Amino acid sequence: MAERVSVEQHQADVAALLAPLVDGARRRARSEEVALADALDRVLATDLLAPHAVPRFRNSQMDGYAVRACDVADAAPGAPVRLPVLGEVPAGPGAVGDLAPGAAARIMTGAPVPGGADAVVPVEDTATGTFVAASDAGGARGDDAAAHHVDVLAPRAVGDFVRESGSDVGAGDVVLGAGTVLAPHHLAAAAACGVARVRVLVRPRVAVLSTGAELVAPGEEPGPGQVFDANGPALAAAVRRAGGVVTTLARSGDDAGAFTRALAAATADADLVLTSGGVSQGAYEVVKDVLGGGAGGDPAAGVVFRAVAMQPGGPQGFGTVDGTPVLTFPGNPVSAQVSFVVFLRDVLEQAAGRPRERPVGRARVVDAGVSPAGRRQLLRGVRSPDGGVRLVGGPGSHLVASMARADVLVDVPADVTGWDAGTQMEVWEL
Amino acid sequence: MAERVSVEQHQADVAALLAPLVDGARRRARSEEVALADALDRVLATDLLAPHAVPRFRNSQMDGYAVRACDVADAAPGAPVRLPVLGEVPAGPGAVGDLAPGAAARIMTGAPVPGGADAVVPVEDTATGTFVAASDAGGARGDDAAAHHVDVLAPRAVGDFVRESGSDVGAGDVVLGAGTVLAPHHLAAAAACGVARVRVLVRPRVAVLSTGAELVAPGEEPGPGQVFDANGPALAAAVRRAGGVVTTLARSGDDAGAFTRALAAATADADLVLTSGGVSQGAYEVVKDVLGGGAGGDPAAGVVFRAVAMQPGGPQGFGTVDGTPVLTFPGNPVSAQVSFVVFLRDVLEQAAGRPRERPVGRARVVDAGVSPAGRRQLLRGVRSPDGGVRLVGGPGSHLVASMARADVLVDVPADVTGWDAGTQMEVWEL
Repeated sequence: MAERVSVEQHQADVAALLAPLVDGARRRARSEEVALADALDRVLATDLLAPHAVPRFRNSQMDGYAVRACDVADAAPGAPVRLPVLGEVPAGPGAVGDLAPGAAARIMTGAPVPGGADAVVPVEDTATGTFVAASDAGGARGDDAAAHHVDVLAPRAVGDFVRESGSDVGAGDVVLGAGTVLAPHHLAAAAACGVARVRVLVRPRVAVLSTGAELVAPGEEPGPGQVFDANGPALAAAVRRAGGVVTTLARSGDDAGAFTRALAAATADADLVLTSGGVSQGAYEVVKDVLGGGAGGDPAAGVVFRAVAMQPGGPQGFGTVDGTPVLTFPGNPVSAQVSFVVFLRDVLEQAAGRPRERPVGRARVVDAGVSPAGRRQLLRGVRSPDGGVRLVGGPGSHLVASMARADVLVDVPADVTGWDAGTQMEVWEL
Repeated sequence: MAERVSVEQHQADVAALLAPLVDGARRRARSEEVALADALDRVLATDLLAPHAVPRFRNSQMDGYAVRACDVADAAPGAPVRLPVLGEVPAGPGAVGDLAPGAAARIMTGAPVPGGADAVVPVEDTATGTFVAASDAGGARGDDAAAHHVDVLAPRAVGDFVRESGSDVGAGDVVLGAGTVLAPHHLAAAAACGVARVRVLVRPRVAVLSTGAELVAPGEEPGPGQVFDANGPALAAAVRRAGGVVTTLARSGDDAGAFTRALAAATADADLVLTSGGVSQGAYEVVKDVLGGGAGGDPAAGVVFRAVAMQPGGPQGFGTVDGTPVLTFPGNPVSAQVSFVVFLRDVLEQAAGRPRERPVGRARVVDAGVSPAGRRQLLRGVRSPDGGVRLVGGPGSHLVASMARADVLVDVPADVTGWDAGTQMEVWEL
C-alpha cells in the first residue's frame, strides 16, 4: 500500500474537489424561488428588496383621535380642548379623506391617519376615557356613533403616535441580506413588505450508494452471512442535516455490472455521489475494482484511492465519474459516519450556505487512553453534565449501536500515543 | 381595564392550559410509526429494542486468515507455522462450514468466522504479505485461488480479531432510549439491528389564524388601508421550528361570522389554535368580540382576555373553544412574535419532546436604555462578535422589518426603569 496521507491532506483534497459546489457565484446562479411557507431554514440567494414600504401608509400607533397638533396646543387636564368628532377611521380597506381644521377623527391602531391630521391623541388623554363600542351604541362600522365631540386633555407635538410610511423600511430598501438563513422573524419581515416568494440557494444534491454483497435492507429477514445496511439511512440523514437533498438512496452488491449501473444512475442526477464499502484491502472490493483503474492520481480523471492516517475511516477515495464528484467511504458503519463528519460535513454545509459556527470545540476527556502512533483517532464520547467527555463503546469500527450513545467524536492527534485522564482535546459535535 | 397580570403569571396560565399536550403519558399514547427515511429529528416515543444482535454473527475484524489459536501458538517471524488454506470466506450471503483442525481459511473483514476457528491472523502477520486478488489469479469468487498455504508469523490468542455476535448490542437490548431526538448516528444504530420503522411522538398540531379587516396576503396588490399579513407566515414557521405541525393557516376579516366559521374549522383539527389580532382596546376587535363573552375568568369555559404587564405583546387571551386550547396574540407583528417566544415556544417544544437546553441566556447589553415602570420589555437585539448585544430597530411593535436584523430579545424586568451601557441582562434566542 502507498504511504498514508494525513487527515488534513485528504480534507484539503476533498474540499478542492468540491470547491465548485461551494463557489458563491455558482451557487447564486443555481438559486430557486420558493413560497414563504416552504422557506423556513432555506438560505437567501440574493438581497431581498422591499417591494412596498413598511408601513405602507401613515397610520396610527394608538387607539385615539387624529388631530392637527396646532388645534390641541393649549390642551391641559384643567383646560380641555373640545373638538367635534367628524368620523371614525377603523383599520381596514378603504380610502380615508382629509380632516377638516379644528376637528378630530376617532382612529384605531394601524388605521390610516387622515390627510391634514398630524398627531394622534391616545384615548387615555381624552375626557371620554374609553370608547363606547360602536355595536353597543347601535352604530354601524364607520359611523360616528360613539361620540360627537372629544375633550382633549394634553397637547401633542406634530408626529406624536403617527407611524410614518417607510419608517420601518422604505420601498426598494434591503430587508434581508443574501446568505440569511431564514428564521420566522425573517419571514415576518418579508411578508410584511409584501413578498410572497423568496429566491433561495438550491440544496446540494447527493446520491448515497451502499455497496456490499452482504447487505440487506433493515426490516428484511437476513439470511446467513447477511447484515443490515446502516450506512444508507445514516448517510442520507447526515446529508439532509447538513442542508443537502438525497437524490438516490440505493444498495448494490459486489457485482461490477450492477455497481456500474447504479453509479451511472447516481451520477446522472446528483452534484455528488457518496458510496460506502468496497474500498479496503480485501479480495472483493467492488468500488475499488470498478473505479480504481484510470485516475493515475488525478481526481479529475477518475477516483484516487488512498489510505488516510486515521482510525476509523482509513480507506478513502475521491475523484470524478462522468463529470460528477464521487467520495468513497469505507463500509464499516462507524467508519462511514466518521468519514462524513471529518471530510464532508463542513463542505456540504458551506455548499448549502449554512456553515456551522463551531464544528470543533474543546473538552476535557475524563478517561485516559492510548492511540497508535501515526494515526489520528476519532473516538466516540458522551458529554457529562459538568462538560467533561467520557469515552463510550470502544474503538472498534463495527460498534455502530454503541455509537448511538455518543454525542461527540474525540479527536486524538496522529502524534499522540497516550493521554492522561482530564486532558483537554478537540471534539466534533455529532 | 382590569389590572395587568405579570408575564410570569400568564406564562404559568398558558403552561397549565397546555399541560395535557406536554403530559408524557398522553404524548406516548399518541405516537406514530415512521420509516427511518422520515425519522430524522423526530423524537422516539418508546425505548427501541434490538430485534437482532449486532453483530448478528461472529465475524472477522480484519482481512486475513481464520485459524484455531492453538495451531499458531508457536508461530514467530523466524519460525513461521505453515497451514493449508482450505477455502476462502468472503463477506456476503451464504452459510459457512467448519474449519478443520490444523488448517486456515482466507477471510475478509466482516465475513462469518468458520465454526472451529477462534482467531483471525491479519494478512500483515502472514508470509504472503498481501492478497493476490482473486480476479488477478484467474479464480472465481469463493475459490481458493490466491494461495494454497499460508505462513503465519505471529501467535494469536483465542478471540483475537474476532467480533463476537452481540458484542455491540444483544437481541432485545435497548438500543435507543425513549425521548431520543433522532440524529444520523441514532438512525445508523436502528438500521444496524434491523429496524426499518420507529415509533415517534406525534407533533403538536397547531392552527394559525390571522384576523383583521386590513389584511391581505403577501404577493397580492394591496388597496388603500390594507396591509400584508406577516403573522400567518411567521407564526406558522415558528410552530414548525418548535416541532409542531401547522394544520391550518388562514386569514379572517373582522366579520364575526367569518371568524367564527374559521375558528370552528381550526379547532376541529388541531391541538391548539393560535390567533393574532383582534384583542386590543379598539372598537372592532373580532377575537375579543366573539370569544370574550362567557369565560368568567375560567379558561376551561371560554377565552379569558387580559392585559399582561409587558411591551410589546400586552393584550393576551387564553382559553378553550369547543374543547381545544386557544391562545390569542395581539396583531402587531412584533407583538405576535414576542408573544410566541415568551409564552408558547417552550411549551410547544416540550410538547414536541424537544425542549431546548437554554431558552434564555445572559449577555452584556452595549446600549444604555430606559423602560416604563411596571412593564417587562422585550427589546430586539443583535449579538456582536465580542458577545455583547446591541439594541436594534427601536421599541415600536410595528417595526417588523427592523426585527429581521435581531437575533435575540433583550428581557428588561418590569421593575427596571433604566440601565447603563454594559449591563448584563437576560436574552432570549430568536
